[in-house]
Amino acid sequence: MTDQRKPAFGIALVGYGFMGAAHSQAWRVAPRFFDLPVEPVQSVIVGRDLEKLGTARANFGWAEAAADWRDVISREDIALVDICSPGSTHVEIAIAALDAGKHVLCEKPLANTVEEAERMAAAAERAAARGVFAMVGFSYRRVPAIAFARDLVAAGRIGTPRQVRALYLQDWLVDDEAPTTWRLDKTVAGTGALGDIGAHAIDAVQFVTGRTIASVSGILETLVHERPLLGESIGLGGTPSSGRGAVTVDDVALFNGRLSDGVLATFEATRFATGRRNSFRLEFSGSHGAIAFDLERMNELEFYDGSDAAGEQGFRRIYITEPEHPYTAAWWPTGHGLGWEHPFSHQVRDLLVEIDAGRQPRPSFADGLQVQRVLAAVEASSANGSAWTPTGAEDG
Amino acid sequence: MTDQRKPAFGIALVGYGFMGAAHSQAWRVAPRFFDLPVEPVQSVIVGRDLEKLGTARANFGWAEAAADWRDVISREDIALVDICSPGSTHVEIAIAALDAGKHVLCEKPLANTVEEAERMAAAAERAAARGVFAMVGFSYRRVPAIAFARDLVAAGRIGTPRQVRALYLQDWLVDDEAPTTWRLDKTVAGTGALGDIGAHAIDAVQFVTGRTIASVSGILETLVHERPLLGESIGLGGTPSSGRGAVTVDDVALFNGRLSDGVLATFEATRFATGRRNSFRLEFSGSHGAIAFDLERMNELEFYDGSDAAGEQGFRRIYITEPEHPYTAAWWPTGHGLGWEHPFSHQVRDLLVEIDAGRQPRPSFADGLQVQRVLAAVEASSANGSAWTPTGAEDG
Amino acid sequence: MTDQRKPAFGIALVGYGFMGAAHSQAWRVAPRFFDLPVEPVQSVIVGRDLEKLGTARANFGWAEAAADWRDVISREDIALVDICSPGSTHVEIAIAALDAGKHVLCEKPLANTVEEAERMAAAAERAAARGVFAMVGFSYRRVPAIAFARDLVAAGRIGTPRQVRALYLQDWLVDDEAPTTWRLDKTVAGTGALGDIGAHAIDAVQFVTGRTIASVSGILETLVHERPLLGESIGLGGTPSSGRGAVTVDDVALFNGRLSDGVLATFEATRFATGRRNSFRLEFSGSHGAIAFDLERMNELEFYDGSDAAGEQGFRRIYITEPEHPYTAAWWPTGHGLGWEHPFSHQVRDLLVEIDAGRQPRPSFADGLQVQRVLAAVEASSANGSAWTPTGAEDG
Amino acid sequence: MTDQRKPAFGIALVGYGFMGAAHSQAWRVAPRFFDLPVEPVQSVIVGRDLEKLGTARANFGWAEAAADWRDVISREDIALVDICSPGSTHVEIAIAALDAGKHVLCEKPLANTVEEAERMAAAAERAAARGVFAMVGFSYRRVPAIAFARDLVAAGRIGTPRQVRALYLQDWLVDDEAPTTWRLDKTVAGTGALGDIGAHAIDAVQFVTGRTIASVSGILETLVHERPLLGESIGLGGTPSSGRGAVTVDDVALFNGRLSDGVLATFEATRFATGRRNSFRLEFSGSHGAIAFDLERMNELEFYDGSDAAGEQGFRRIYITEPEHPYTAAWWPTGHGLGWEHPFSHQVRDLLVEIDAGRQPRPSFADGLQVQRVLAAVEASSANGSAWTPTGAEDG
Repeated sequence: MTDQRKPAFGIALVGYGFMGAAHSQAWRVAPRFFDLPVEPVQSVIVGRDLEKLGTARANFGWAEAAADWRDVISREDIALVDICSPGSTHVEIAIAALDAGKHVLCEKPLANTVEEAERMAAAAERAAARGVFAMVGFSYRRVPAIAFARDLVAAGRIGTPRQVRALYLQDWLVDDEAPTTWRLDKTVAGTGALGDIGAHAIDAVQFVTGRTIASVSGILETLVHERPLLGESIGLGGTPSSGRGAVTVDDVALFNGRLSDGVLATFEATRFATGRRNSFRLEFSGSHGAIAFDLERMNELEFYDGSDAAGEQGFRRIYITEPEHPYTAAWWPTGHGLGWEHPFSHQVRDLLVEIDAGRQPRPSFADGLQVQRVLAAVEASSANGSAWTPTGAEDG
Repeated sequence: MTDQRKPAFGIALVGYGFMGAAHSQAWRVAPRFFDLPVEPVQSVIVGRDLEKLGTARANFGWAEAAADWRDVISREDIALVDICSPGSTHVEIAIAALDAGKHVLCEKPLANTVEEAERMAAAAERAAARGVFAMVGFSYRRVPAIAFARDLVAAGRIGTPRQVRALYLQDWLVDDEAPTTWRLDKTVAGTGALGDIGAHAIDAVQFVTGRTIASVSGILETLVHERPLLGESIGLGGTPSSGRGAVTVDDVALFNGRLSDGVLATFEATRFATGRRNSFRLEFSGSHGAIAFDLERMNELEFYDGSDAAGEQGFRRIYITEPEHPYTAAWWPTGHGLGWEHPFSHQVRDLLVEIDAGRQPRPSFADGLQVQRVLAAVEASSANGSAWTPTGAEDG
Repeated sequence: MTDQRKPAFGIALVGYGFMGAAHSQAWRVAPRFFDLPVEPVQSVIVGRDLEKLGTARANFGWAEAAADWRDVISREDIALVDICSPGSTHVEIAIAALDAGKHVLCEKPLANTVEEAERMAAAAERAAARGVFAMVGFSYRRVPAIAFARDLVAAGRIGTPRQVRALYLQDWLVDDEAPTTWRLDKTVAGTGALGDIGAHAIDAVQFVTGRTIASVSGILETLVHERPLLGESIGLGGTPSSGRGAVTVDDVALFNGRLSDGVLATFEATRFATGRRNSFRLEFSGSHGAIAFDLERMNELEFYDGSDAAGEQGFRRIYITEPEHPYTAAWWPTGHGLGWEHPFSHQVRDLLVEIDAGRQPRPSFADGLQVQRVLAAVEASSANGSAWTPTGAEDG
Repeated sequence: MTDQRKPAFGIALVGYGFMGAAHSQAWRVAPRFFDLPVEPVQSVIVGRDLEKLGTARANFGWAEAAADWRDVISREDIALVDICSPGSTHVEIAIAALDAGKHVLCEKPLANTVEEAERMAAAAERAAARGVFAMVGFSYRRVPAIAFARDLVAAGRIGTPRQVRALYLQDWLVDDEAPTTWRLDKTVAGTGALGDIGAHAIDAVQFVTGRTIASVSGILETLVHERPLLGESIGLGGTPSSGRGAVTVDDVALFNGRLSDGVLATFEATRFATGRRNSFRLEFSGSHGAIAFDLERMNELEFYDGSDAAGEQGFRRIYITEPEHPYTAAWWPTGHGLGWEHPFSHQVRDLLVEIDAGRQPRPSFADGLQVQRVLAAVEASSANGSAWTPTGAEDG
């Protein structure tokens, strides 16, 4: 049931996979917890497989289904196009939608190449001049604990950052016989662990520190080069079918980076961290304090305050459910945690507020391009014996 | 957007507080993730304060608002009445709704006295004979980790239970100047920590062990007897206004219990556990294994398997996000955790499936009555120098 | 190699079991890390089984062995008698040694009955008037984290204590076929889990809060009433031999207590906490802060400071290895933790410093008597339907 | 008091700092808990500062003190020279002692350069042919949890290693005004975090996996280039005096390595990990399981067994105090943990047993040389833009 006191704001969702489900939930839920300037309407879901699309329409709660995004971006009742399809499709859809005057929310990573990302950022810049905005979906920025980490750093609570660690550890490819999926196909996904989860690590480090990654030295590695083809899709993987296919992306990405002010940051993105289902760990060591986070305990933030009395210093486990924490007051009383999906609602909230205010939502496509440049620099470094490689990224 | 392939199933929600918000979210979200036999419709929200009610209607997503539940329970488009108002109101509304042929979901604790609970259980039994069902909302049964704990115990994975610990630790009353609320008023809430959170501990222990609590010895204590009156309500507490009021319920409940087979269980329910925002901890020690849980880390279950090789034994931290775990497959891929609110969707799912199948949903009003008898026995024991007091409860 | 700059101080150790080994290590090691007023000399070890005694003498590093403690307490070269034999032997040896002018260190619990403990405390009081001192070995007071907890409470860092939890969880009797030992024989050990580990919980709560336990309500329970007789002793248990014997002590002790100022404390001592090898957990909830501890992580203390900024509050994990922490500066640089045995060295250090200064070491036999009275009150309460039972203990 | 049943085995200790204290404790304690073939005698301690030496002699329990190690290595009553002086002194003392027919225990890292280490390894090989043995003191191999990790890997319990993480995080240099010490002087210490703590990480990874590091890519960084000179030494640091000195070693070392079979390993050694006092973390991800360790919780090992039933998988926290675990049975009953110092006793035990059996103790000087080659390769890589650099190390 929608809130009729507010102007309707039609959404077209492209994609009906895991991300499509998450975004659908956010469009459904965010308006019921946040005071939005408009009332988003789940108008149309777009996808190529009509059978799956029909099921997704009903399950995800969309009014209509459409096979071709081109038919949708010109519709007057659509205000925003939400792109959740694989990376290879982003560039065409996003630019067309922006050119058609639709706001765009595009899943990360922004594109499969720097060249695509540059074209998208240019289109976004053109559109912004007309009051049409684009945002890239680095949703983990909106995990309350990560947003609060940024607040703490910005307020000087850890002093000057000195070292950063960012590890995104998953294990869904440990089994050699886990089937291949589109995420393991370079032509569709661009890269593997690097772009899928390493991109989150890059964005989070840049977001929390307020700095960009200026250069990198790293290595990409594929541990299992051939896997069964995918039968039925389940979660991020699925059941194998007969036949085998090549894995053309990295399973593991290891790299060091220097932030814009020279601070060293270490990164790991892997799908081979046995026993770690979804452990995205961040640690920021500063001159006067430190912060640590693990996505598997996403409602907690560890904070070390070097100004605590000697003998009383230690990492505090803060349960990030207080009114003082970003986003949490909109949900439940103190002590009642959120789930993995909630940051997508925060993303919807921030996006709509910024659009309404005529301000560029962040992370912008320019931000997404910057991440893409880091990804490309890691690939280049890996191909060049881990030589330090500038990203060309500028401070955001 | 609702699923029109399924029969509409009208819901009337009574109450617009914290629990009303949680139930509204469940009615909204459950149908999008679970394959329900009917399509619940958020028809009408009921409450006395018309201004707050109007806001709640829009925010929570209900089609209509109504001031009197009596007008609602006779409506043909209403199939189920969901009671989220304070405990003192349960008995009248629930019995009337059941007698009017409406299914009922009633928040816990079932009632404020055993006598009320007995009348409600009797009404539920009469209704069930007509295919009209009642359920009490012990939602923590549907936390996947707790449901999985029950599965493990039922499968004999810890052997015979030997000892149980159930501590529900909160700290929102530690400040002497935290204002009083309806939860601290005996005439409205019945009891304090005992009924509000101790009831969860009682239900969870009985649910996971498959046993009932046969007798108890305990003590109730009020640590702060007078508090500022409530100004604006925020979360479970709020801002103080001028004037002071008496606290007429327990702040702390400590009790030991014997399960139906003699197993000793220790219970604590407190709102004075400084620094513990919402730490509901369960531990089941058995002859061959053990299980531990903490609601602040609700996506984790610790399991100790005594049949592991000597030297390799230890509590395993299981991240309860696997397809093998209850409820989780409906949501996100492995490794993506749920929040505090999700068990309410599981409750909706189970309730509708059972109603559709013509089966009594659990926990039934008889189950709720049993918990009420334990609460009353604790009160009696406390008033009688902690003497062991039978609950009169029978195995479920 | 001893330090010949200091006067020799001869020690006679009675007992060669687990505790004898721990005390031997303390006499050996403490002088090398702490600046003691005297140089303890491991003069003679006393025991009845001459074969085991010879092995213990060499392994534990004692100069001589003797079969009868009566021959030892009159020796001029002996300054202190250290009693590590079972509880049933304490009363006779301790009183004789004190009367012979020897200082006494006696393992906990002080005695097997209040009557014995009263006689011992009286003897200690008489001896103290002559400058001969007695101490009881509640060594956990000297765990740096527990001593630091006391410092924090004494400094008002948690405000007024409001609730206390003390659980001592072990699991070495979970197996029904684990053999019986002297610890399971009431005539030798007095009580089971209650006196062996519950006594630690009682002492620690009283020590950290600076309050005594005034009354208790509890229950003792034996879960397995018959076990194989002991073959070879290993650790706290051993291998079974043929034949079976009765277990005549409690396996589990559950009790609530009121401190001298009315604060409620909950206690559990159990050898049936499956998977918990030696988990002695303390939690002190105060009006402005809280403290939590677990012996399995004995180098850590969790401290919650309610005066931290809103949103930044949380339990700090303090790694208790700093110069500011009790005892730790004598050992290793910050960050290098201690083991279970080190508190025994702290005990030796404190004992010798106090004796040298002519001050009564704590915990005194009067303190041990007080603990004994709590143990007796728990037994009485358990025998009387968990009725609240005064301990008769006075503030220390 | 020594055990006169066994032949005396005279020890000369060179160095009286932190490591000298730790080794002294091991020589004192190991014979009382382990059944050694000889009885070590703390004969003589050697050092240049005679005042400090006299204090150390008494405090550490040595019979004599000597100013020049040259006078000591020829003494007939000395069987073994234990070198705990700074790295720059190792080469001369160790070779002279071996040539004089004395067994040698030498602290890590073996030397300050590969060239020195090669000469030492050659001397050790010559000596071994005469039954005189040398060992390098990578004591963390003897942490029971790390030794047990090796056992698990060797037994195939994690399958084939796929990825390794080794982070040694300290924070004692975070304060810019923490004084410089010999550890920050390249001419004395060779390298900084790299050789001091990174060497532990290298040895532990090679030890646990049974593989060597074949090539590396890394970066060294000094964050604070000038510090106050040291006044009084306290722990690893101390109080500042007037005057300032240059820091000539690395504060942070970050590197990736490939093991002999190509497995990727990531390493970090830092003294700038704010809030991490001494967190040496290891994680081994294998094809069928994983292992994780943190030195701050050195009595615990986390083990993930991929063969656990689906839904029941998770990292087990094993409390490494069981009879099945390496070394622990010699100490205390199950559940009673060890401290940081105990592995030095294990080192003494293993060293003496191997010498007695005429076998080469491990880690040998050849093993130490191998670690030195890895350190040198990291330095070379850092100087060469993080280019991948072969270590020249061969499988051990």
